[in-house]
Amino acid sequence: MSLLVVGSVALDSVETPFGKADEVLGGSATFFSAAASHLTAVQVVGVVGDDYPVAKLEPLAKRGVDLAGLERAPGRSFRWRGRYRHDLNVAETLETHLGVFSNFSPKIPTQFRKAPFVFLGNIDPRLQLEVLTQVERPRLVACDTMNFWIESRRPDLMKLLERVDAITLNDGEVRQLSDCYNLVKAARWIMKRGPKLVIIKKGEHGAFMFTGDTVFFAPAYPLEEVFDPTGAGDSFAGGFMGYLAKCGEVTEPALRRAVIYGSALGSFAVEKFSIERLLEIDHRDIAARVADFRKLVAFEEDL
Amino acid sequence: MSLLVVGSVALDSVETPFGKADEVLGGSATFFSAAASHLTAVQVVGVVGDDYPVAKLEPLAKRGVDLAGLERAPGRSFRWRGRYRHDLNVAETLETHLGVFSNFSPKIPTQFRKAPFVFLGNIDPRLQLEVLTQVERPRLVACDTMNFWIESRRPDLMKLLERVDAITLNDGEVRQLSDCYNLVKAARWIMKRGPKLVIIKKGEHGAFMFTGDTVFFAPAYPLEEVFDPTGAGDSFAGGFMGYLAKCGEVTEPALRRAVIYGSALGSFAVEKFSIERLLEIDHRDIAARVADFRKLVAFEEDL
Repeated sequence: MSLLVVGSVALDSVETPFGKADEVLGGSATFFSAAASHLTAVQVVGVVGDDYPVAKLEPLAKRGVDLAGLERAPGRSFRWRGRYRHDLNVAETLETHLGVFSNFSPKIPTQFRKAPFVFLGNIDPRLQLEVLTQVERPRLVACDTMNFWIESRRPDLMKLLERVDAITLNDGEVRQLSDCYNLVKAARWIMKRGPKLVIIKKGEHGAFMFTGDTVFFAPAYPLEEVFDPTGAGDSFAGGFMGYLAKCGEVTEPALRRAVIYGSALGSFAVEKFSIERLLEIDHRDIAARVADFRKLVAFEEDL
Repeated sequence: MSLLVVGSVALDSVETPFGKADEVLGGSATFFSAAASHLTAVQVVGVVGDDYPVAKLEPLAKRGVDLAGLERAPGRSFRWRGRYRHDLNVAETLETHLGVFSNFSPKIPTQFRKAPFVFLGNIDPRLQLEVLTQVERPRLVACDTMNFWIESRRPDLMKLLERVDAITLNDGEVRQLSDCYNLVKAARWIMKRGPKLVIIKKGEHGAFMFTGDTVFFAPAYPLEEVFDPTGAGDSFAGGFMGYLAKCGEVTEPALRRAVIYGSALGSFAVEKFSIERLLEIDHRDIAARVADFRKLVAFEEDL
């Protein structure tokens, strides 16, 4: 089943303790679709400026990412420059230039409007709400957001919560949104506002999925080299939504496996800059990593 | 099989966002034996001053904790006063009075010297080494340590590493000891110095167990109320060693289950002040929590 993502398509310049990359492919929709395209057909809605190296998106198109919704507007593309120190859980933003992204108004092409699975990447909640007026009864809608919107667009975000099935947030955002330090209580607080499903991404500390009455936890894959954490969360979301769209069901077992696929794709994303590693891997690599996740947490019921 | 622990027996005064406790039972050997005694017979070696409320240890003695190695010395008992803010992973030490503990020299009673499982709680590595000269070919020796000893007693600690089978450390200590930020590499570094088994306790973020070629991860139990994190690490060690002593084997499946028992006992310890909660629970509570840990990480191999 097809999967629609609305989000940013950007150029990232990143510095980590292990190296530097300049003006490489970035943005939530880019990482999301690079990850999800391993599992299902992906439809992207976003905007780039007339300076964007669109040819570099070709490998995504070849893998079934439909870029018909990627608008090209006159002006400069969205650029982000950031740095990580040894604690790779913390990104330091050095520069953000919104460019054409500041006037982004998502227009969902007619052929994308029936997508059964929809992911609203981290953009203004007002735009996320606009997307929802354009799609036709999707089976599952998930959204992401960030500290900036939680602070500046709380009323819109609360309206959005009423209309989504799932939300993915990091632990800091969950605490900020709910004003509650304990993550179990914070997740409950959010579920009362709408989403049936709350996914808390804790970076190197793994991810929780809270549903009505169950909790699922997936560790982060213990990598010896975390090269560049940029895009890990969006790649997680891509793996999660991609797996659900692939198997076409939204049951507890499917959701749990979807979190593992999200963790697996997220763990590949951080092994190289940009979407490089996500473009190298194939279904065998993913299957092997999913099997590794199983070994990582497996213990015998009884001895 | 019996389990020997050498460590501190203290009086703790603790302040958390949820309450205050004054001069309650604390210390590594106290938490360790309160946890381990749910699983096996425990032998304690430690020291208290003549002001220690020894009668309060009676509930431990009733549950099979042999206090024959608990020396009573003239002077004041070891006292620790600390505070936690909302981030319960970080303890702020307000006062430490070593008292009689500063002259502690562990003497292992003859009847304890054949204990097959030995845990060296967090004391001066020179004393931990002295214990090893007094015990007779134990099957498994594990030790704990802390930032203070890593800094001030590194040569002794390195000697100790050569002589233990397992070490439990928190993530900060692992990084300090190995001078390596990445935990996978840090664990390898430590294993090269002696221990076949490195357990990294990450508090609310769970625990890793590294062996020669496997990695196991157990999440922390997602509690709605973490009341007082004091003693969580020692209770974890008590559950871990207690389970191994109970089943008497040191195989990979037993070690994995031992980590889960450690996580379960650690999660009970933080539900109340001191060893209160550890004294309330019984084997049914523990079995139920172990089953919860399974549900927390379980996912289907295939759909």
